[in-house]
Amino acid sequence: MLGPGSTIGILGGGQLGRMLSIAAANLGFKVHVFAPPGDNPAFEVSGQATAASYSDEEAIKSFAAACDVVTLEFENIPLATAKWISSAGKLHPGPKALEISQDRLNEKKFFNGIGLKTAPFWDIQNAADLGEAIISAGGAGILKTRRMGYDGKGQIRLKGHQVTDEALGLVQQSETILEGFIPFSKEISIIAARSTSGEKAYYPCPLNVHESGILRSSTLSREPDYDLEDKAREAAGKVLDELSYVGVMAIEFFVLSGDTLLVNEMAPRVHNSGHWTDKGAQTSQFEQHIRAITGWPLGSCAPLGAVRMENLLGDEIQKVGELAEQGGHVTLYGKKEAREGRKMGHVTWLNPT
Amino acid sequence: MLGPGSTIGILGGGQLGRMLSIAAANLGFKVHVFAPPGDNPAFEVSGQATAASYSDEEAIKSFAAACDVVTLEFENIPLATAKWISSAGKLHPGPKALEISQDRLNEKKFFNGIGLKTAPFWDIQNAADLGEAIISAGGAGILKTRRMGYDGKGQIRLKGHQVTDEALGLVQQSETILEGFIPFSKEISIIAARSTSGEKAYYPCPLNVHESGILRSSTLSREPDYDLEDKAREAAGKVLDELSYVGVMAIEFFVLSGDTLLVNEMAPRVHNSGHWTDKGAQTSQFEQHIRAITGWPLGSCAPLGAVRMENLLGDEIQKVGELAEQGGHVTLYGKKEAREGRKMGHVTWLNPT
Repeated sequence: MLGPGSTIGILGGGQLGRMLSIAAANLGFKVHVFAPPGDNPAFEVSGQATAASYSDEEAIKSFAAACDVVTLEFENIPLATAKWISSAGKLHPGPKALEISQDRLNEKKFFNGIGLKTAPFWDIQNAADLGEAIISAGGAGILKTRRMGYDGKGQIRLKGHQVTDEALGLVQQSETILEGFIPFSKEISIIAARSTSGEKAYYPCPLNVHESGILRSSTLSREPDYDLEDKAREAAGKVLDELSYVGVMAIEFFVLSGDTLLVNEMAPRVHNSGHWTDKGAQTSQFEQHIRAITGWPLGSCAPLGAVRMENLLGDEIQKVGELAEQGGHVTLYGKKEAREGRKMGHVTWLNPT
Repeated sequence: MLGPGSTIGILGGGQLGRMLSIAAANLGFKVHVFAPPGDNPAFEVSGQATAASYSDEEAIKSFAAACDVVTLEFENIPLATAKWISSAGKLHPGPKALEISQDRLNEKKFFNGIGLKTAPFWDIQNAADLGEAIISAGGAGILKTRRMGYDGKGQIRLKGHQVTDEALGLVQQSETILEGFIPFSKEISIIAARSTSGEKAYYPCPLNVHESGILRSSTLSREPDYDLEDKAREAAGKVLDELSYVGVMAIEFFVLSGDTLLVNEMAPRVHNSGHWTDKGAQTSQFEQHIRAITGWPLGSCAPLGAVRMENLLGDEIQKVGELAEQGGHVTLYGKKEAREGRKMGHVTWLNPT
């Protein structure tokens, strides 16, 4: 167990790094954030900060040497960077989880390989692949870049057997996959943790609503669906064990009628659909992650009541006074520019009685 | 209402400044901490920090100019310093509250003046005063310095009509008062807030246990004593209004048999006996203070269940693994040296159902 005064390194300076940094400080740790130069709100709450490129080997190695353990807010850290750090034995989660989650194709194959169902998918190398796949998929699907997509970026919806020029352009530019449409009734996610000692913990699953590929809200009702929770925990447990994972991870699921779960994707880090835990659970996902990577006992995942988390995107940040007036718990990320669709903060509604 | 990206200045770099800084960041504010050079754990979580003396007028004025509002973690800021800042209209709470709370004699006179009862007290200027006062007090009392005492420092217990050499020494060195012993049954405190708009809010009162003048625990039971709560709120409301106070303040009370309340002292800041609110209330006292001084609507003070906060003093910080294992919520302050009796952190037990 890492003791008070040890230093936690965090790769990534956005809101997740910021909330991790605060959680680490509350447990008595020092924090060093490493992120490429830019608007890095995590720098505002960390004792030490390095602004440099992830490919700056010297900067990365000197950062790693100054930290007792290193973690990340962002799975798309270059693998070489992850390996420079983990060669010193200090990176949680490690390169294996990153390698899988950085590539949608590998990720889906990984899930299927350990017995977890996914939506149907096709590896698209060229226009001919896409033409064939769209037929197999019944004329409709979502074309996605294999790498670096998030919040709906790098995705094109195809329907009516139409292969658009935009889709062909994406196939030429990037490695892609086609995912078949799933007639899902809802989307849920699980936040799960595994510590250096192998201890595991699972939060209850919120119902997630996305718009244009961006999470809008996560809602935890007072009455859990135990059957669904069990299935999600079982899937998460398999993933954690298979990867000998250390830290918090999120897995997103599609729920089909009859409560069949299909894995959508995983994120080897704290996740937007776990922000409800910050005000709404005994232990926040951010603290849980810090506990897991430092070998502390994991905390209780019990919710404090019914909870609803809503993202504040772009200009919605201007509503914070009104939301606070109505009893919402506002968390803002300290970002400089409120661009359209940008995650500026979130509000949590907690109703514990 | 101050908007996201505004800068909050905090005078004082200890654990209260640290927890205020985190709360401010979570509301999207930038934070600038000003404290004399030394071990300043608040510097670790704030975007900007100035290490300089409170009597460095140039440093204080340049700090104040860089902040949209300034607050404090510590009531013993020199009054001159407070006035340099408040002349620009930016200090909450203002010099009046500080002036009163910096001097036990003035503070007690202030309470009595607005109709709040205190323990009997005597102004002690010299040995003769002390001799007379100890007789009036029935042979026993606590001799206290009027200024700068905290956590039991600057206090001597007298009994059996004995005026000790140590007591006479204290009278010669410092301005002092003698407080009569009170046959109190318990000690409680109230954390109250008043915002720039005049809105007020009150937390329920915990039962506080002190040892050697240092707070050991604050416990909020599931069933409040409504009569006592009402009396405490009424007293706090008078103080807030009389001072046109802005921010969070704490008032400590002795409870006599029959639920009579005597005011012990006030602290014009967030307070150790309000640390339970961080994990145990809808809104933490730290966030409430930031809301109050920035003109945000105040948050709900409702507790999330029965709560118990215990301080971790000195070496007790070594128990954190065990406490976390047992389900305690550990908050550590990041102090470098675990000296005996020093407040290193606290643990909160939350049992919301």
